[in-house]
Amino acid sequence: MRKGIMRHQIGDPFEGFLLIKEASKGTTSNGKPFMTLILRDATGQIEAKLWDATNEDSETFVAEQIVQIKGEIIQFRDKPQLKIFSIRPAQVTDGVHVSDFVEKAPVAVGELQEKLTAAIFEMENPALQRIVRAFIKKYQEPLLLYPAATKNHHEYASGLAHHIVSMLAIARELYQLYPEINKDLLYAGIILHDIGKLKELSSVATPTYTLAGKLLGHIPIMVEEIGEMARELQIEGEEVLILQHMVLSHHGKAEWGSPKPPLVREAEILHLIDLIDAKMNMLNRALKNVKPGEFTERLFAMDNRSFYKPQFEAGRVQPEQQELSHHQK
Amino acid sequence: MRKGIMRHQIGDPFEGFLLIKEASKGTTSNGKPFMTLILRDATGQIEAKLWDATNEDSETFVAEQIVQIKGEIIQFRDKPQLKIFSIRPAQVTDGVHVSDFVEKAPVAVGELQEKLTAAIFEMENPALQRIVRAFIKKYQEPLLLYPAATKNHHEYASGLAHHIVSMLAIARELYQLYPEINKDLLYAGIILHDIGKLKELSSVATPTYTLAGKLLGHIPIMVEEIGEMARELQIEGEEVLILQHMVLSHHGKAEWGSPKPPLVREAEILHLIDLIDAKMNMLNRALKNVKPGEFTERLFAMDNRSFYKPQFEAGRVQPEQQELSHHQK
Amino acid sequence: MRKGIMRHQIGDPFEGFLLIKEASKGTTSNGKPFMTLILRDATGQIEAKLWDATNEDSETFVAEQIVQIKGEIIQFRDKPQLKIFSIRPAQVTDGVHVSDFVEKAPVAVGELQEKLTAAIFEMENPALQRIVRAFIKKYQEPLLLYPAATKNHHEYASGLAHHIVSMLAIARELYQLYPEINKDLLYAGIILHDIGKLKELSSVATPTYTLAGKLLGHIPIMVEEIGEMARELQIEGEEVLILQHMVLSHHGKAEWGSPKPPLVREAEILHLIDLIDAKMNMLNRALKNVKPGEFTERLFAMDNRSFYKPQFEAGRVQPEQQELSHHQK
Amino acid sequence: MRKGIMRHQIGDPFEGFLLIKEASKGTTSNGKPFMTLILRDATGQIEAKLWDATNEDSETFVAEQIVQIKGEIIQFRDKPQLKIFSIRPAQVTDGVHVSDFVEKAPVAVGELQEKLTAAIFEMENPALQRIVRAFIKKYQEPLLLYPAATKNHHEYASGLAHHIVSMLAIARELYQLYPEINKDLLYAGIILHDIGKLKELSSVATPTYTLAGKLLGHIPIMVEEIGEMARELQIEGEEVLILQHMVLSHHGKAEWGSPKPPLVREAEILHLIDLIDAKMNMLNRALKNVKPGEFTERLFAMDNRSFYKPQFEAGRVQPEQQELSHHQK
Amino acid sequence: MRKGIMRHQIGDPFEGFLLIKEASKGTTSNGKPFMTLILRDATGQIEAKLWDATNEDSETFVAEQIVQIKGEIIQFRDKPQLKIFSIRPAQVTDGVHVSDFVEKAPVAVGELQEKLTAAIFEMENPALQRIVRAFIKKYQEPLLLYPAATKNHHEYASGLAHHIVSMLAIARELYQLYPEINKDLLYAGIILHDIGKLKELSSVATPTYTLAGKLLGHIPIMVEEIGEMARELQIEGEEVLILQHMVLSHHGKAEWGSPKPPLVREAEILHLIDLIDAKMNMLNRALKNVKPGEFTERLFAMDNRSFYKPQFEAGRVQPEQQELSHHQK
Amino acid sequence: MRKGIMRHQIGDPFEGFLLIKEASKGTTSNGKPFMTLILRDATGQIEAKLWDATNEDSETFVAEQIVQIKGEIIQFRDKPQLKIFSIRPAQVTDGVHVSDFVEKAPVAVGELQEKLTAAIFEMENPALQRIVRAFIKKYQEPLLLYPAATKNHHEYASGLAHHIVSMLAIARELYQLYPEINKDLLYAGIILHDIGKLKELSSVATPTYTLAGKLLGHIPIMVEEIGEMARELQIEGEEVLILQHMVLSHHGKAEWGSPKPPLVREAEILHLIDLIDAKMNMLNRALKNVKPGEFTERLFAMDNRSFYKPQFEAGRVQPEQQELSHHQK
Repeated sequence: MRKGIMRHQIGDPFEGFLLIKEASKGTTSNGKPFMTLILRDATGQIEAKLWDATNEDSETFVAEQIVQIKGEIIQFRDKPQLKIFSIRPAQVTDGVHVSDFVEKAPVAVGELQEKLTAAIFEMENPALQRIVRAFIKKYQEPLLLYPAATKNHHEYASGLAHHIVSMLAIARELYQLYPEINKDLLYAGIILHDIGKLKELSSVATPTYTLAGKLLGHIPIMVEEIGEMARELQIEGEEVLILQHMVLSHHGKAEWGSPKPPLVREAEILHLIDLIDAKMNMLNRALKNVKPGEFTERLFAMDNRSFYKPQFEAGRVQPEQQELSHHQK
Repeated sequence: MRKGIMRHQIGDPFEGFLLIKEASKGTTSNGKPFMTLILRDATGQIEAKLWDATNEDSETFVAEQIVQIKGEIIQFRDKPQLKIFSIRPAQVTDGVHVSDFVEKAPVAVGELQEKLTAAIFEMENPALQRIVRAFIKKYQEPLLLYPAATKNHHEYASGLAHHIVSMLAIARELYQLYPEINKDLLYAGIILHDIGKLKELSSVATPTYTLAGKLLGHIPIMVEEIGEMARELQIEGEEVLILQHMVLSHHGKAEWGSPKPPLVREAEILHLIDLIDAKMNMLNRALKNVKPGEFTERLFAMDNRSFYKPQFEAGRVQPEQQELSHHQK
Repeated sequence: MRKGIMRHQIGDPFEGFLLIKEASKGTTSNGKPFMTLILRDATGQIEAKLWDATNEDSETFVAEQIVQIKGEIIQFRDKPQLKIFSIRPAQVTDGVHVSDFVEKAPVAVGELQEKLTAAIFEMENPALQRIVRAFIKKYQEPLLLYPAATKNHHEYASGLAHHIVSMLAIARELYQLYPEINKDLLYAGIILHDIGKLKELSSVATPTYTLAGKLLGHIPIMVEEIGEMARELQIEGEEVLILQHMVLSHHGKAEWGSPKPPLVREAEILHLIDLIDAKMNMLNRALKNVKPGEFTERLFAMDNRSFYKPQFEAGRVQPEQQELSHHQK
Repeated sequence: MRKGIMRHQIGDPFEGFLLIKEASKGTTSNGKPFMTLILRDATGQIEAKLWDATNEDSETFVAEQIVQIKGEIIQFRDKPQLKIFSIRPAQVTDGVHVSDFVEKAPVAVGELQEKLTAAIFEMENPALQRIVRAFIKKYQEPLLLYPAATKNHHEYASGLAHHIVSMLAIARELYQLYPEINKDLLYAGIILHDIGKLKELSSVATPTYTLAGKLLGHIPIMVEEIGEMARELQIEGEEVLILQHMVLSHHGKAEWGSPKPPLVREAEILHLIDLIDAKMNMLNRALKNVKPGEFTERLFAMDNRSFYKPQFEAGRVQPEQQELSHHQK
Repeated sequence: MRKGIMRHQIGDPFEGFLLIKEASKGTTSNGKPFMTLILRDATGQIEAKLWDATNEDSETFVAEQIVQIKGEIIQFRDKPQLKIFSIRPAQVTDGVHVSDFVEKAPVAVGELQEKLTAAIFEMENPALQRIVRAFIKKYQEPLLLYPAATKNHHEYASGLAHHIVSMLAIARELYQLYPEINKDLLYAGIILHDIGKLKELSSVATPTYTLAGKLLGHIPIMVEEIGEMARELQIEGEEVLILQHMVLSHHGKAEWGSPKPPLVREAEILHLIDLIDAKMNMLNRALKNVKPGEFTERLFAMDNRSFYKPQFEAGRVQPEQQELSHHQK
Repeated sequence: MRKGIMRHQIGDPFEGFLLIKEASKGTTSNGKPFMTLILRDATGQIEAKLWDATNEDSETFVAEQIVQIKGEIIQFRDKPQLKIFSIRPAQVTDGVHVSDFVEKAPVAVGELQEKLTAAIFEMENPALQRIVRAFIKKYQEPLLLYPAATKNHHEYASGLAHHIVSMLAIARELYQLYPEINKDLLYAGIILHDIGKLKELSSVATPTYTLAGKLLGHIPIMVEEIGEMARELQIEGEEVLILQHMVLSHHGKAEWGSPKPPLVREAEILHLIDLIDAKMNMLNRALKNVKPGEFTERLFAMDNRSFYKPQFEAGRVQPEQQELSHHQK
């Protein structure tokens, strides 16, 4: 695929494939039908209007459909819009796939899997290790593919695994500094804390909240699953209860969805590591888009703050200029 | 048993049996050992000091032990205290039982059971009915004996069942007024909403919080149990998820321990009925202790308010003057 | 009148009478004058543009005017709009009245009046009964016609009386369950609690807030009126003060407009019954508009929640399918 | 009267008259009866124990009784206590009166009355002036004698009038600076805003909250009285409603007891002037008790802050060293 | 200059000079370039569209440029818009200056300076006086020209000095009423409290926040400057610390930007006087724009309230009808 | 020194040296003078009463005095108390020093200093490095000796340096994981963030808040010092402002004392690292005192939570059992 949609300027022509994320119908003030399409590729999304839309159009151009478009980037009410000159659904022979249009984690799936495995291998407590292993096996595929959220942080393919692996790296270092930490417990909590999202979110490419996600949320879902898994594995020690508590409390307080606050050391650390990795992910991605001396756009999940990139950053070699493979060693 | 401990005035002699609720050791400023005992019967509790306590005393007089005491009610720092003249542990031949020293619901256990059964009998939705029946069977005995809490409301033997049965009565009436209500769902939610307390609290007579109660709380415990029960019964419809949601949301908001607020009509009503019955229980019991024209003591769980009993209540026949059996028809 | 305006789809033609709720003038970017009309009937409201509006038009088409319109329902910025082909003011001979265009309570006025009378007839405390009777007499007509609010709940003609009568029904049942309740006091509080709205709101058909409504609000207005009425009737017992307190405290806390929280049992219950009936009214009306398996729109006065209608509701006979006359027996 | 009770140090002998503010009975751990007396004069209050109290003692030494005491100031648990050597009730021939034992405003009643009259004389709006005059006439005596509160600020005899007169002085100056202010309205609001306290508090010497004070509070009481007074005087303009609004809103927000916030300029200023005078009263009285370089005790009604008196205050002539008659010119 | 831009009605022609406050480029849905200009004069601002804008236009018509425009006031989406017939940049010969297009304080700069000087002359404490004098000298020019804020209150040229001078007048009067106040300290606090805004805001005419303003804010900036100034002047007494505390605490609480609340009497008064003058400034300006019997628009910085101007204000001579020179005597 | 005071049980005899932390005088109910002494050594503190205290005693036994005591540990009102048999002030020949009676960081001062130096050595940005070096030089001695607080976390000698060094270790690891971090900036922020505490707290051994600490707090104190230092060093780049911002914002939000929240990436990380190290310090010290299966006492600065030590911790080698020198590698 060529240059992504977000890399185009106002006035640029566009020709290429895009994925329809949302499609809806409207009528102009003259009574003419049109369609509003939200189109995306791995770099971001743009709105487009399809004027004089036929009934056939509205059956063809639906969410999850890939389309080939020729058009031009214009500005409409302060935002870029894609003006469509021609549009057609992609065909098998085009050789394009939904996964091509989705943002991905900056670390390869294989590397994520390897690091997960390595962490489990380090664990010594048999009860904790067996439960974690069983979950990894049960959710092997989605765990490596799902995003960690629909927006805010790690909201890209493999985002959940990327988030877990980053958190494990922080945990390993904190354990060096504070050897009082029970590393096995912390690792287990990190690996399992957000797995409930696999049932809370509907899919990898266009994730929305499932009914269970809306009515229960990923935390109670996962508390239940841990209990069920332990019964299946016939594990009975206090480890099960403590693991359930870690998942239950990892949002830190009741207002944030944890009916109990962390009451075990490793639960408190899990909450803090989760905060750090989520915030660093948001901050680094937002700051990458601005130049030294500028502020980022407002970050909703960071209390709506805009962050400043100091001018003296200009003189520093930025990690994005380094080799990517060095990123998460 | 004779007149309860709370029916004595300062200066009255006391002779009778009491249950030790708490026992702790101390030393006077002269270096002499003594014990502080919290003693209770079904009417309430009182503090006592056992001076010059021997090692043997501190092994004999422990929590849950029934003792025979002769003494006198004195006042110490604005509160009544029981001055001990003589004390001995109760013996089998005394014919006293722990359950004699515990406050009980104003409705008999048999009547509570009957009403529970009648409600379940009314239910038509087979999935809901089967789950409820299975829980009633599983927890038959404790469900009829446990208090609903350690303090605040329905904090007496059979308090949980009393609370459920009162709520069912309100539900039945609201269903008459708002026939849109799904009665089966509401009944099921009422019966199950607090059953997690059987695992959250340690016992009927001197209930404290269990480790699972402290680290998870009764709400997640019960959400998990409903899922487990449904799997055992091989029930799979949306009823299971909705029931779990009702339990999860019955505290009304995140700050109060419900990670999701009520998002189903019957969940909202369940929350409101729970509020009404808890508040009426607290209010009626507090107002019974004051005369018309007076304020009650501050009620912690009612935002620390003192309630006023109007003077014109003096002219009304009070329900406590009516036959008790009429109470909860 | 034919099918209401809210029962039309995008693309449908429309011909019929509508009431102008609001009318305002504008100028297009070409400098041409137009009018924006908010039009309503008993089913809801819709916006319309009247292009090339003359001065005469802007004098004719004003709020509270009924008009006959031919046109078509189009979509404009995601919302339906009524495109006007022709418009004329209604004439006497058209036989249409403002009250035809206003939503009404689901219970007839006569029935509401009857139930109010019956409740007062049950009261035994002469002071409370005389005050209530005097208010019913003073406000006889508006009390039966006014809405209970401008939006959120019972915001239709006779909404106030409908709300009162529903609350009386709940009160009667709770009195059965908790005979400690002083029924006379609770009935009096229910009947009077919102009567201040007759001075807070400007009219039945297009209610807005009066100056007294904005600067004092219905609660202090009614506290004052009760005092005045008691002086007129030369009633002096504690009943007057307690009634004023019940009105004053019925919003439950200071943040919600009650300078004193409920401090009398019946004041607390009044607050709870008010909550239940308001919430059931909102919930039932919102859920009536969605199918099983769907969520309602967000309900602002319910903390902005969307409620879910379970799929198994599909199998239940809904009350709206039963005879309406059974509704509030 | 001699040197007040608060001017004594630990170890000083005491001989003089004191007023009993509270009296309660107790029993020592040896079972001997004693009484705890809270004794006060115009400088403050002290606790005393009357050991071996007889039944006669407990009938004689009751609240509001003046007693003659000989004793000594000792320290008990970090607080001064009056050790009683002898005690007898005051007799007519002692020539002491309850009002001698109460703290008074630093300005004479005559001067307060004069200033109130002068302010009313300045008013030009006849409706506002007539209402204010009528209230001054109705409450002439208590208005000049009552405290403004039971604690926190102006909690001394004539405190209410002192508070009003200070606020009028601020209002006069702000009117000079901001001539947009409607002086008549502001004066009327200031004079009436707290008059409801005459019904909220029980007495001048040992004020407690009345039942109406507890169930309604001074704000709704006064809103009602203004309405009643206006009807009696047959005054009907918007002035009545605005005055009621000013009283209703003078606590500034709902959480502080005003169901409506100030919505008229003079209501907003009234609230601010009330704040200033209350805070200056608290601050000046607390700072008078500390030396330069020290902090005051924590002031509960000032968000529990301790205030610092700078060392350079040592070099300033303090107003308390100036003639008192200059105080409130 | 002629009648200001805000004094025009929809439909009026306009011819005159305006200052460009903001300028941005856009593209129509037909792909044609246009510019959006925010234009202002001393009476307010209006939006305008410049259609078919050339590259030259976008280089010419930039912020801070004065332009001569012929056009007409039209209405666009409920707001007035200036339709441009012709536009050209102002030339030297036009004799217009940026300062002509900015709102100014209602008191002349000379008078403000005089009053500031008079206040400093009254001060007796040498340390306080020297520090204040040094700041006045250091910031002489901007102090007399800067606004006090970018919006809400005193947001006009010389607004900061106007705010200071009004506050000094209130302080002088409160000192008369409460002679305990240390007038020197209060004066010094008032004069310095907002001087940090000279570094927080970028300019007089189109003020925005500087980087130091965004990252530190005017309070810490000024705390630091006072310390620096004292070191330069070799002043060492407690006055320096207390002055820093007054600046630090003048927003009243942590949530409002003061890490310490006022802990010195004069700091508390400074906070209250600041509140009064800011609120009176907002209120008087908003109420000047409405007629008796109307409400103002919502005032964001007054908790979003709309204020009512009573009808009886119609009969009062308003200060704006008096001579302006009398305003701030 | 022998076994510390906190290692004694009720009933144990005590003989040894203790430091007087606080001393105050009282009078018994019999009028006899006594002294209350708070005595401490490095393990904790205990209260003692010195009966029949002479004037000489109260001049001898003052805060900061070391005393030699023989006595016995008794229990008084549920707390241990030291009953004094004999007491005398320490003499030079006793060879005891104040620093012997103070708790110390678990890492030696030399090691702390070395690690600080190493971190500064790593820095590359000259402006940041010079400022940090200058501060280290200016505060060399107190920086290595002061506690980080008077209570809650790192409240022991060298606590501040221990806190800084631990935070540097975390920073180094996070920089490995997130190379986007500007390590120099983060190091500088960590080293300087709490140095203001050297002026906020009065001493190492018995720290209390200084006047500047109470009226300004360590954050504004340090913001000012950084500005002053930069002027002295004639450093002018954006680094100064950013460093001031990092100190200003490191408490995270206004309510917690930071008038600006973190608006630079490294400021956000600094806040998070500060949280982690403070919490780990509190948690590890509290958990060290309880056995597996127990809860800690309530930790005030951790939202008053009690933390649980899981039973399976019993099987783990605890770090306190490892060599201490391994602790902070």
